[in-house]
Amino acid sequence: MTTIKDIAKLAKVGTTTVSRVINKSPKVSELTKQRVEQAMKELNFVPNEYARVLKSQKAKTIAVSVPSIWHPFFSEFVFHIEKKLLQKDYRLLISSNNAESSVEIEFLDMVRQNKVDGIIALTYHNIDHYLSSNLPFVSIDRYFKEAVAYVTSDNYHGGEIAAEELIKRGCKNLGYVAAIAPQKNDTLRRKDGFVDKAKSLGFDVDIFQRYEPILDYNVFFDEFFEEFPNLDGLLVMNDQTALVLLAYLDKKGIQVPRDIQIVGYDGFHYFENFETSLTSIKQPIKEMAEAALNLLFDLIDGKPIGDPVVLPVSFKEGKTTKPLL
Amino acid sequence: MTTIKDIAKLAKVGTTTVSRVINKSPKVSELTKQRVEQAMKELNFVPNEYARVLKSQKAKTIAVSVPSIWHPFFSEFVFHIEKKLLQKDYRLLISSNNAESSVEIEFLDMVRQNKVDGIIALTYHNIDHYLSSNLPFVSIDRYFKEAVAYVTSDNYHGGEIAAEELIKRGCKNLGYVAAIAPQKNDTLRRKDGFVDKAKSLGFDVDIFQRYEPILDYNVFFDEFFEEFPNLDGLLVMNDQTALVLLAYLDKKGIQVPRDIQIVGYDGFHYFENFETSLTSIKQPIKEMAEAALNLLFDLIDGKPIGDPVVLPVSFKEGKTTKPLL
Repeated sequence: MTTIKDIAKLAKVGTTTVSRVINKSPKVSELTKQRVEQAMKELNFVPNEYARVLKSQKAKTIAVSVPSIWHPFFSEFVFHIEKKLLQKDYRLLISSNNAESSVEIEFLDMVRQNKVDGIIALTYHNIDHYLSSNLPFVSIDRYFKEAVAYVTSDNYHGGEIAAEELIKRGCKNLGYVAAIAPQKNDTLRRKDGFVDKAKSLGFDVDIFQRYEPILDYNVFFDEFFEEFPNLDGLLVMNDQTALVLLAYLDKKGIQVPRDIQIVGYDGFHYFENFETSLTSIKQPIKEMAEAALNLLFDLIDGKPIGDPVVLPVSFKEGKTTKPLL
Repeated sequence: MTTIKDIAKLAKVGTTTVSRVINKSPKVSELTKQRVEQAMKELNFVPNEYARVLKSQKAKTIAVSVPSIWHPFFSEFVFHIEKKLLQKDYRLLISSNNAESSVEIEFLDMVRQNKVDGIIALTYHNIDHYLSSNLPFVSIDRYFKEAVAYVTSDNYHGGEIAAEELIKRGCKNLGYVAAIAPQKNDTLRRKDGFVDKAKSLGFDVDIFQRYEPILDYNVFFDEFFEEFPNLDGLLVMNDQTALVLLAYLDKKGIQVPRDIQIVGYDGFHYFENFETSLTSIKQPIKEMAEAALNLLFDLIDGKPIGDPVVLPVSFKEGKTTKPLL
């Protein structure tokens, strides 16, 4: 079987030059190209097309990895990603169970074998090791040890807004409740903004944090209210947890916002055009999706990793805080 | 350039036999195989690997097309599909904007070019024309002119259950409210079951149906209550519409279930482990996803199109109907 080496020998060039001719690289002079092609002809050589196509063609596919597609924040995010990709004639591969890190790593392995043009990951695991410097990669909310492009929203300022709005609505005893991932990520700054702003306005914050996964939210909230029974204003670190808390309080006969005011974080819709009842700090989910794709396409086009994109958040008034006087 | 024909001639076999040897088919005797390989060697033949791989290898990818991934029913459905695919080491391509038929058709074209092993579509468009008999295809809820594998749940019996449960809870004036797709599909049978069961129990049903898309649900419900002001028990054709109705009634100061009892249809969760407040007819979403995949993998394995799979539904008691006495 003829190899590239045989051709290189006959054409009196290096094997790299033969590869370049096969891959139609413009770096080879016309004369050299003719010599190599002549040698290929003499040796009856047919280049391995499969390898060549794999190497040169774009897959026109993006992979997105999220903790669960069965979750309004992530499904809204993916909805916007997919809508934008469609305009670009790209397809979307999805991994929706990355809450288990083994699943996520398997997926990352899989898509690398498969060939996608890039990955957007919303993950709180330690996948640094699996980031290939060759594959365009954009992270949402997460820092990595290596330089990685990422998009987040202004989590610190979101915390500040929550403190300000609860205090404007008469809250005196503030609390912060969170189930947190072990990996460092930007969402942890919600607490810092909340605490700093409260302090600057003369209030302390009681903080209750537990590591994920939370196996039983009833136990989680029982412990919280046992430790801090007298709070009248809460920032809950995401809408999902805030909604579970509302159901918990409803069962206990505690009225929201009369007895306690609650601000969630995310501002997601249950589905298009249908909001939750929560007062919340709203992340610009559509804009985050679009910014992530823009960063990713820049990387695919060979541009260097730019600065993180930090998008603004806003206050969404719902039914879980009192109206302003 | 050596072709398969040249090899067949030299080896004194048919071109099919040469193909089989290239594709490592077990249907070739060891002796024939050796003769073909000898001819390939003599003619210095390297098979076109790309074509071979494309022909023989599975893409190990499934495409799913849904009206919107930003919707609890579809995201729950896709969540279960993806979980099952992962176990099989398959990837999931997703199209989430098939509410616009042009988008869906573009996607179907795209995935056919691309190469996926099969498609699951939850669609209410007329895509009959785009169904290739070669590509394994499973539909959810939809009939097609051509024979197509499909999965649905027992929509007729779901309607019956709703009538029975509303009447048991004291309703006298029943209504059915639906926004419907123009294409014939199994979900239309919810109305039939509801009406038939009510009749058999001595009650009439007022029916209000409009074709999708509904541009303004306030107008939709205004018209409904203008036409039928005295109803006390409703089956709404899906949870999404029922939830929008609840918000509408809340604004109007009409109390549910005191003034009017409401049964939705789907029984979806907003996210994992978090239900809506609706009383609803629950479809077995996970089982439907798994049945669709089983049908699809049967087709991929070359089995013929089997009978439709119809899965049972159940009554989910929420807060929008009165408790039984």
